[in-house]
Formats: sequence, structure tokens, C-alpha cells
Amino acid sequence: MNPANSALLTDLYQLAMLQGYDHGGMEETAVFEFFVRRLRPGRGFLMAAGLEQVLEFLEDLHFTPEEMQWLASTGCFDKDFLTHLETLRFTGDVHAMPEGTIFFPNEPILRVTAPIAQAQLVESRLINLLHFQTLIASKAARMVLMAPDKLLVDFGLRRAHGAEAGLLAARASYIAGFTGTATVLAGMQFGIPLFGTMAHSFVQAHDDETLAFEHFAHAQPDNVVLLIDTYDTEAAARKVVALAPRLERDGIRVKGVRIDSGNLAEHARRVRQILDAGGLGHATLFASSDLDEYALRDLLASGAPVDGFGIGTRLDTSSDAPYLDCAYKLQEYAGKARRKRSEGKQSWPGRKQVYRNYDAEGRMAWDGVTVEDELLPGEALIQPVMHDGRRLAPAPRLEDIRSHAAANLTRLPEPLCSLQDWYEYRVEIAPALHELARRVDLAQA
Amino acid sequence: MNPANSALLTDLYQLAMLQGYDHGGMEETAVFEFFVRRLRPGRGFLMAAGLEQVLEFLEDLHFTPEEMQWLASTGCFDKDFLTHLETLRFTGDVHAMPEGTIFFPNEPILRVTAPIAQAQLVESRLINLLHFQTLIASKAARMVLMAPDKLLVDFGLRRAHGAEAGLLAARASYIAGFTGTATVLAGMQFGIPLFGTMAHSFVQAHDDETLAFEHFAHAQPDNVVLLIDTYDTEAAARKVVALAPRLERDGIRVKGVRIDSGNLAEHARRVRQILDAGGLGHATLFASSDLDEYALRDLLASGAPVDGFGIGTRLDTSSDAPYLDCAYKLQEYAGKARRKRSEGKQSWPGRKQVYRNYDAEGRMAWDGVTVEDELLPGEALIQPVMHDGRRLAPAPRLEDIRSHAAANLTRLPEPLCSLQDWYEYRVEIAPALHELARRVDLAQA
Repeated sequence: MNPANSALLTDLYQLAMLQGYDHGGMEETAVFEFFVRRLRPGRGFLMAAGLEQVLEFLEDLHFTPEEMQWLASTGCFDKDFLTHLETLRFTGDVHAMPEGTIFFPNEPILRVTAPIAQAQLVESRLINLLHFQTLIASKAARMVLMAPDKLLVDFGLRRAHGAEAGLLAARASYIAGFTGTATVLAGMQFGIPLFGTMAHSFVQAHDDETLAFEHFAHAQPDNVVLLIDTYDTEAAARKVVALAPRLERDGIRVKGVRIDSGNLAEHARRVRQILDAGGLGHATLFASSDLDEYALRDLLASGAPVDGFGIGTRLDTSSDAPYLDCAYKLQEYAGKARRKRSEGKQSWPGRKQVYRNYDAEGRMAWDGVTVEDELLPGEALIQPVMHDGRRLAPAPRLEDIRSHAAANLTRLPEPLCSLQDWYEYRVEIAPALHELARRVDLAQA
Repeated sequence: MNPANSALLTDLYQLAMLQGYDHGGMEETAVFEFFVRRLRPGRGFLMAAGLEQVLEFLEDLHFTPEEMQWLASTGCFDKDFLTHLETLRFTGDVHAMPEGTIFFPNEPILRVTAPIAQAQLVESRLINLLHFQTLIASKAARMVLMAPDKLLVDFGLRRAHGAEAGLLAARASYIAGFTGTATVLAGMQFGIPLFGTMAHSFVQAHDDETLAFEHFAHAQPDNVVLLIDTYDTEAAARKVVALAPRLERDGIRVKGVRIDSGNLAEHARRVRQILDAGGLGHATLFASSDLDEYALRDLLASGAPVDGFGIGTRLDTSSDAPYLDCAYKLQEYAGKARRKRSEGKQSWPGRKQVYRNYDAEGRMAWDGVTVEDELLPGEALIQPVMHDGRRLAPAPRLEDIRSHAAANLTRLPEPLCSLQDWYEYRVEIAPALHELARRVDLAQA
């Protein structure tokens, strides 16, 4: 079984509450919205991602016979309730911002409208899916902004938090503008372009470094990118130069080299000189090792002659901010708006829409958040995507999502295109929403 | 298909190298070891976890017909090589420290001895599995040390990085001493005890907070733990006190309350007073919201009357240190020891053993790391677990792994039991290993 699709990918309290709803005959429509409460330090914007996996999960939602049997065996649930679970499917509506859309705190990116049991049950997995891909797309977008014309490849599978994190990080970073990934299964599952060369172990397994290079070139004549830092980086670059004419005679061209340790800027400059002087001006230089958006900015600002970057751990774990302060909250039940007022965790009630306004140059100027049925100036960002449990349109192509993301990035306000964090984008909560919150508080007081 | 078992859960360069090995007829035995290079700031020790999933992956290693078809369709691989991939299985040996064992930098916790293609192919997934569970077990162990007699429950699924991270974080934290998890599927898959109460949405969905409590109590009479911070924490505690006698008449007892926001210590003290004064002295107090080992230490040091904790994001993402500086490196090929010398990333060559020595009180005193065939004083930590691709013993029970971890924690040196980071445990690299490194460097020079 693929656990990614299991209806048991939920917290026990969801089932406890479902039994409570079932017991009390509460089956009215609930509205939940997913949003981010506030940005992590150093971040200025977010990029929505993960919707596609959410819709797949909802379309397929059901308990398998094995799961039902196991649930019964726990003794925690009564028979009537289990009978209801057996036939539970997702029959609700979903509204969302398209994947690749830039968004900001307090702006919902997903709304679920469904009988309360369905909308409640899926909370844990919906947050799990939207949180992670949004986290990674937002981090990757920062790297794309720092190195807009460079080859950027996700190298992070090994230190991603599990298999799914590796696969979805490849997807989210590709949406944000990465060129591709090293993760083979992500190539097969999502059609993401694959990149890869060799590891140190390949060089180490040979008794001689040049022999390793030669051997690799003959086995991969179309993809001769050689890793040159196993022992001594510049010495290895000279070995590549010495080897190149021999390979040329066999019709094989050295496409590039990779450096994975030490001072990358310094090594890149020296290696570039060695390659150029040795007639390998066409060979590209690829760098990896502990890279993130700050390292990219500094490397490129220093003029380091690097053509492409492999970025692993710090992308796939979003290492400086490995989580978002996000929530999936009940905003309405049985036609009445609802609101949580817990200290520091208040939310805006009701079904909402986000309107985006642009300046004369076409850059984002400010967003308005209001109740769903109020029309504000600007572009409405939240659109219906699922009705009665069925998608309203086929899944968009990943390339189209990526183009949408790229278009969004070109419209970012200038200050958000750098890594400064002093700029706060203007998100206006409309008077209608303030008024609704006031009325809800009065009713709940 | 469950992607967790896919042989394509690897980096493209592994397949490129495999084609290189294949092309050159390199099929001799390789030895790779997994180890952590250095501790992250603030950390004093690590706890090994993830071996069980590694062994499952190796036992099942194969390419499916669909995967073979897709690989062929990429045009990156030649026919002979693909034919060899088709029949590839893991036929090697594995040596490892048992899960739950405390370890330190430069100590291998896993050794793979296999034909080089097999040992190389699995690198990405083996790191992915060992890295994550070790990361989480090590983080969870710190929380267990800070709150040894408290109920500790993993609440992290929603902000874990994907489904597998949620499931394996539940497993790793349970190994380290957590009491259980909220993740239902982890209960089904691993038999981990499940805990869960209610969310704010349950309270919000009712027009009246007391009604929500009453309703929940009747639906879950054996597990009446009520969430009291949706609107006003102390007011809700008084509602619980007022409700309790009515519930008692129906034979239902309030088991506890949960607080999820605000100043937890202050709320806990006030709520405890309200409950005690209201005849609910038996009801336990459960706290959650942004907790980690530092918050646990401070809360308990302040005397906050909290009986249990739900710990989510900061556990499941290991938020202050979301990755380990770990590697899986070639240490020997075709009978010759090997070593990488990249700047800042040197490794010790050859097959190794770790010997642990204890002081008079039975606490860990120092470890010795040496070549496999040298005997040092102390307990040998690395044991054979798989031979010719088959396990040497059935998988240990999770409870036994957890007991082993608990026993290890009681033997930690005193300074490592607090959250101070000035103490560095003594790991001695034996002269025999220094000598081997010297010889390898000479041969590779």
C-alpha cells in the first residue's frame, strides 16, 4: 500500500471528533481554509504549492477493508460510526489559488466546503501536503531570484525527510524555477528533467583518478561532467585538460566539471583558468556543497565563474526555516461564520477571497482580503477547482504551473526580489471582514 | 505503488556510475559506511535509528517492469546495462549498531559490503532513511531527558515533511522514549500507542462551548480530555468544573484538559487551581503549542503543573537543526582501503569497529574506533545483521528497540543529560586507523 493515500494519515483526534459529530448527528456543511499566519524571519513572500496532491488525495479518499478491520480492532469506535466511515468519500467543493501563485500571511490558499466529517478528517494530510511543498517552493524561489540565469538542480533526496519529501521537494523546486532534479523517481513520476554526474566513490573505486575520468567518459559519452575534488581540485582539473585530447580522438567531449568542497569561488576561478588555458573553454563549471540562496548571492556577486549549482540539504529541508506557521481552520459551520480566538492564534472568520492589485509597471502593489461575496478591485486569486468531489478541470501540466510561477516572480515588488527582510507587502483586511469578525465574537461571547 | 520501496529512489548519478562500473567490468566487493561527520550546534550525542527500514529496502531491492520500461525510454542507458539492472538484487552483507544505540561523530552506524553496483545504487535511500530517523530519535531523546516522567506524545504529522516523515517521526520518537503518537497510520503500521483528544474546530462547530464538551464526553466516554483554550482558557476550565457533576451522573469522568496557546505555565497553574477547587483533582493537564526540549525544561523548572505534552513541529522537523552532517562513503574496494580527502570532508578508510567503555557507575566513558580486525577494550557496538541479502535474525520488536534506547540513555555521561553543549564525549581514533589512513594517502598520492 502507498501510505500517501491512506485515510488513516490523520491524527487520532480527527476520528474522535468524527465520532462526536456522528453521535450528535452533526452533518452540516463546514468551511475550512488553509493559510499561513505569519512569515518566518528573513522571508518576504510565499509560493503556493501542493494543490495537485491534495486533489488526488481527496478524489481517492476512502478506508480500505484492512483499515476498517484495524479500526474496529482498536475498540475505540462504536459500530454505527464505523459503518459510516466505511462509506465515507469526499463529496465537497474546493477553491484554491493555482500552484505557483505568490501569496502572503492571512491569505487563504485553499478552501474546503464539505460535510463537517469529511472536511475535518482530511485536515492533517491537507496541511501536511500544502505546508511542505509551499515551504520548499518558497525557499527555491529565493534561490531562483538570486541566480536567475543559472542551471539549478535539486540534489536533496538523501537529506530530505523521507521518500515523499525527496519527491515533492523535486516537484516544488521545479515549479519555483529550478532546472531539474537528481532524484530519478521524480523524473519518472512528474517528468522533471534529470541531472547527474558522478560521486567521489566512483573516483575512489579506481586506482587512478585519470583512469576514473576516462572510464566514466566512455560509459557516458554524452554526459561527461567530471567530479574533480576527490583529492586535489586543481590537480584534477589539469588531469582533465591532459585527458581531453585523448577523448576528443574518440569523439567524446568533456561537457563540464563539478567542484563539491573547499572555497568554491576560489576553486572555480582557478579551475576556470586551467580549463580555458587548456582549450576547454566550452566546458561548464558546476558547484555544489552546502549551498543556499545566500551562498548563491555571494558567489555570484564575487564574480565566481560558475554555470550551474547542485543544491541539496538546505533546499530540501528549508534548513533556516524548516516549517511554516500555517493552519487549516474552521471558518463556517451550518451557515454561520466561526472564529478561533486563542491567544496569538486568532483567525479571520468566513469564506474569503483575495484580490491582487498591480502598479503601473505590472508589479504587485497590494492585496485585499474580504468575504467571498464582496467584490474588491483587483484580480481574484481564489478559484473553484473541485465540485462535489470531482475536479472541474484536468490537472494542469507541471510546465504550465512552472510558467505561472515564473510569471508571478517577475511581478514581485522590487524589494522582495532581494534577500532583505525589511519590506512588508501590504495585505489589507477589508472592513467587511472586520465587521464579520466583530459579529462572530459577539455571538460567541 | 509505494514509492518508499522503489529502486528509482536514487540519484541519477548512481545509475550513471553503475553504467560506468558495468562498462568497465568493475564488479568487485565495495565497503561503504554511514557515519555523521560532526554534531550540529547544541547537540552532544546522537541516537541511531532507521536500520529496520534500511533492511526492508535492501531485502526488496529490484526494478519493476514499469521502471525498466521507463529507464529504457529515457535513452540514457545502453541495452547491456539495462539487462543487468533487470536482475539486480541486493546480495551483500550489512553490519550495524542496533537501533536506539547512542553514538558520536566518526563512528559508523552501518556498513554495507556488496558488489559495488549494489552498494552504490542504494546510497541515496540508505542515507535518506538513516538520516531522518536518527535526526528525530536524537531530538526526541533530548525531550525525554528533560521530561522523564511525563506523557510525551508526537503531534507532528501535519508539519512533518510529507507522509513518510510523519510516520517515521512517530516511530523514531517512540524509540527514543515518547509515550505515543497522534498519527493513526503509525499506530496501524508500527503498533505505537495512539493519543488524541479534540481540535478547536470541534468547539467552534458548536454554538456553545459547554455543549461541545458535553457532546464530546458522551461520544468518547473513556477518553474525555477537553480542549479549553478556544476562546478563554480559565472560563472554559470553570465550564468543565460546572459540567463535571452532570457527566458523573451518567457515569462519565473528565480525564483531563488540554491547553494549546498563551503562557502555558501561567494557564496551567490557574487551571490546576480551578480544577482542584472544583473537585477535579484527578483530572490531568495536557499542554501543547510550539514545544521543544528547551520549553519542556523551562516549564518544568518553573513548577508548572503539567502532566503531559503534545509535541509537534519542533520534533518532526527537528526545527533548530533540521539535518545532520552525515555521509555514506566508500571505505574499501577490491580489498583495498579507500579514503576521500576533499577539503573539510576527509573520512577514515577501511572497515571499522567501535568499542564502548564505561566508568565505574556504568556510564559511557569513552569510545575507541579502529579497523575491524583489531580488538580494543570495551563493548563492540557494530554487529552483523544481514548476510547474502538475508537478515540474520527476525526484525526486533519495537518495544525491545525502545528498551535498548532507554537503557542507553541511562548510561549517558552526566553532562550530556542536560542541554549544555560544552561537553565533548571522547572518541579515540586508534593508531591502527591512523596508520591505515597514512598508507591509503601514500598509495593515492
